[in-house]
Amino acid sequence: MTGSPVNPNPSPCYHPSTFKALSFHDAVPGFREGTDSPRSYLERCIETINEREPIVKAFVALNEAGARAAADASTARWKSGRPLSAIDGMPIGIKDLLETKDMPTQMGCAAFHGNFPKRDNAAVWALRQAGAVILGKTTTAELGGSHPPATTNPFDPARTAGGSSSGSAAAVGARMIPAAIGTQVGGSIIRPAVFCGNVALKPTQGGINRGERQATSMSTHGVHAGCIEDMWQVAIEIAERAGGDRGCVGLVGPRQPPAAQKPGRLIVLETAGWEQVDALSKSAFAAVLDGIQRAGIELLRRADNPLVAKLEGAIAEAASICNAITGWENRWYQRNLVSENPGGVSERAKTALAKAETMTVGDYRAALIDRAAAQACYSAVAPLADAVITLSSPGPAPLWAGDQPGEPLSPRPTGDPVFNFPSSMLFAPSVTMPLMAVHGMPLGAQVMGQSHEDAKLTAMARWLVENLAPLVAA
Amino acid sequence: MTGSPVNPNPSPCYHPSTFKALSFHDAVPGFREGTDSPRSYLERCIETINEREPIVKAFVALNEAGARAAADASTARWKSGRPLSAIDGMPIGIKDLLETKDMPTQMGCAAFHGNFPKRDNAAVWALRQAGAVILGKTTTAELGGSHPPATTNPFDPARTAGGSSSGSAAAVGARMIPAAIGTQVGGSIIRPAVFCGNVALKPTQGGINRGERQATSMSTHGVHAGCIEDMWQVAIEIAERAGGDRGCVGLVGPRQPPAAQKPGRLIVLETAGWEQVDALSKSAFAAVLDGIQRAGIELLRRADNPLVAKLEGAIAEAASICNAITGWENRWYQRNLVSENPGGVSERAKTALAKAETMTVGDYRAALIDRAAAQACYSAVAPLADAVITLSSPGPAPLWAGDQPGEPLSPRPTGDPVFNFPSSMLFAPSVTMPLMAVHGMPLGAQVMGQSHEDAKLTAMARWLVENLAPLVAA
Repeated sequence: MTGSPVNPNPSPCYHPSTFKALSFHDAVPGFREGTDSPRSYLERCIETINEREPIVKAFVALNEAGARAAADASTARWKSGRPLSAIDGMPIGIKDLLETKDMPTQMGCAAFHGNFPKRDNAAVWALRQAGAVILGKTTTAELGGSHPPATTNPFDPARTAGGSSSGSAAAVGARMIPAAIGTQVGGSIIRPAVFCGNVALKPTQGGINRGERQATSMSTHGVHAGCIEDMWQVAIEIAERAGGDRGCVGLVGPRQPPAAQKPGRLIVLETAGWEQVDALSKSAFAAVLDGIQRAGIELLRRADNPLVAKLEGAIAEAASICNAITGWENRWYQRNLVSENPGGVSERAKTALAKAETMTVGDYRAALIDRAAAQACYSAVAPLADAVITLSSPGPAPLWAGDQPGEPLSPRPTGDPVFNFPSSMLFAPSVTMPLMAVHGMPLGAQVMGQSHEDAKLTAMARWLVENLAPLVAA
Repeated sequence: MTGSPVNPNPSPCYHPSTFKALSFHDAVPGFREGTDSPRSYLERCIETINEREPIVKAFVALNEAGARAAADASTARWKSGRPLSAIDGMPIGIKDLLETKDMPTQMGCAAFHGNFPKRDNAAVWALRQAGAVILGKTTTAELGGSHPPATTNPFDPARTAGGSSSGSAAAVGARMIPAAIGTQVGGSIIRPAVFCGNVALKPTQGGINRGERQATSMSTHGVHAGCIEDMWQVAIEIAERAGGDRGCVGLVGPRQPPAAQKPGRLIVLETAGWEQVDALSKSAFAAVLDGIQRAGIELLRRADNPLVAKLEGAIAEAASICNAITGWENRWYQRNLVSENPGGVSERAKTALAKAETMTVGDYRAALIDRAAAQACYSAVAPLADAVITLSSPGPAPLWAGDQPGEPLSPRPTGDPVFNFPSSMLFAPSVTMPLMAVHGMPLGAQVMGQSHEDAKLTAMARWLVENLAPLVAA
């Protein structure tokens, strides 16, 4: 990591009590009453994009004309009292790994430059059916991996926005749009969401139909948003129309955002990655936990129950297990790509491929067994508490000045996913909440539930967001 | 169904004791001893293709130059005593749904005319690594559905070769190649295999890495072959190199064809579709069962055990369950295709899409639950017997003279998959064996095992093939 580059347009310092993320949910009464409209909402978004985008660089494509037409149609529906859904008229960004019929899909990868398949991913199709306004394609780390896009953090352009859902997180953090679709295999939704002050849902594995974007056995679509209500509403509107992944029941829950629900007991995980957490972030999280306890919620730690200790042991190697599984599952796709277009893929991706190509099928099977064993340990803690709580990242967004000529490639230019591998590997739903600020940057805590507990988890996250005092450490 | 068209090149009548399918396994000793070579073997295949292909029409693409180069390299390896595997030099056909870097992938669909992605499917990659000679792309019903290719049955050109793996089955049946890769969602491997006198393995769901060809939650790659030994060897050579599907352990078993193993007890399923079986086919299968009993193998039927009756009940609606699941899972892909290229997709496919688009996510979830319930009933019979046995189709390949102008489209031009839906829906391995001949056409019986019992099932199929007298009904 290096010092900050020149910052021509300093962003405000993040403070959880003063930063107000964009909400679509809060605008809906105005649409009903005729004091606001989806078209006006969109224009405000475009205005913010025009203002912030030159520095933030969250989008790779915008379809303003298409969005205006969609917003006008939505405005007419709200006026006639017949919106298609609660997100009718919501401007939304789509991570550029997902196909959209009206914009290219270039996946942050030179080999896909100009790729324009003119198809809608199943989730995009569902969003259009719900009346949402597909405004743009958001940047992604190359092919959802670690090679970063140009996107900067909306709260400090010298820092990464995280990855791989960099643009989705940054666009929401910069108040350009109220919600965006991201995807996660390791830590690609939750990590950038934390860095950019979003709430986000990484659903139960298979929760949202990935359509053509099958990727790996632990990849999911998820939602970045400014508020819990929008996060849930977007997820459920997709799932009610396009369901979950092939063979999966998918996300099930209420058609409105679940009411806040106070947890009775939470398991605190202090596992892999904990030693990397800086002192200030650690103390901020400790203060959040104090607040939780003061609210009368019981906390359970490894010392309190051997099943928690067992779970922490099982996920201690989550990073290597996840990387083995993902590497193996991607290797044919990547080998074909590199063979076809050797110059169209980054050195970072080629290094990952070379590592995956040393694996045998036996190595892969061993990693699957480790994953299944960890899942069994996770199921075993279900009766002990309502959910798990832990940090969403080892600290706020790190500084990132780009690759430096002659220097070795930074291994994690978009930050460390160490706190995100567990939910990915456990197929567990995770909701991150921007409960803290450290050095003027957002920091998040996440709750993780058991499979299919997405709605319950969202209800508890809502309670925590609504009832905990924002914690500022500087 | 209509009468036979003019047949300019009558094929021989099929008889299970005189028809000798092509075997690669039997040729290997000659390669070792230097009396034969993979190049000579390939030339014999090409000679047969030149002779039979004008009528059979099993291939959409042939790469003879590439195959000759690969066969020469293989010949050199056998000469030096260092073959890459037991299938080094095997000429093989690849169903045209799978990508091959040296031949187009047109999927039997006008919308994909000229599609040439220059990538290798994971299974194709594995075959090349094992030294196999990728000779050609075999025809498929459009997109693996029901709209048939021009392929004719190698034993009677007035009849269908089955589908959707039409060309793979026909090329093996016509002795053009010893083995070919097919795919199944409903009945697309086992049905054409029966019609063309192949043995074939539809493995446990997830057994063989589908690579980019993820298709639906119940689709698999499988192997058509002339003998059990080649069938197993091809499957295991792929699985040892590319593993199973994402998240699946995949096919596990011996590196050589399993030795014949006599079953102790078999469950006879006389379920959905049984009423469609013609009298001669029914009597042929009854005679096969008699032979099995005479060999000292016990048979268990629905009247003998309530769990068998329960299973038959659970799979009685297999066709509608499978069609609902497949229709839902394909609808976004197909909708995009039809929107992009309305003239590039058959009326048959459009009709299936229209039906799928009337479904709600609730309909899909209900079908998934029915499938899971049937799987539970299937697991419950595991302790009762070594495997299940039933017909592989309701009769031999039906006559098919093509769509007739002005007539309604035949719903099943490639035959009825009613006997194949159960193994697909149950995720169960199935091996079909050409144990019978009816009216001079092959007819098969299949054994079905529990998940991951592919090797045991293959061993039992081998015993049945080696020990039962071929049954001829005319």
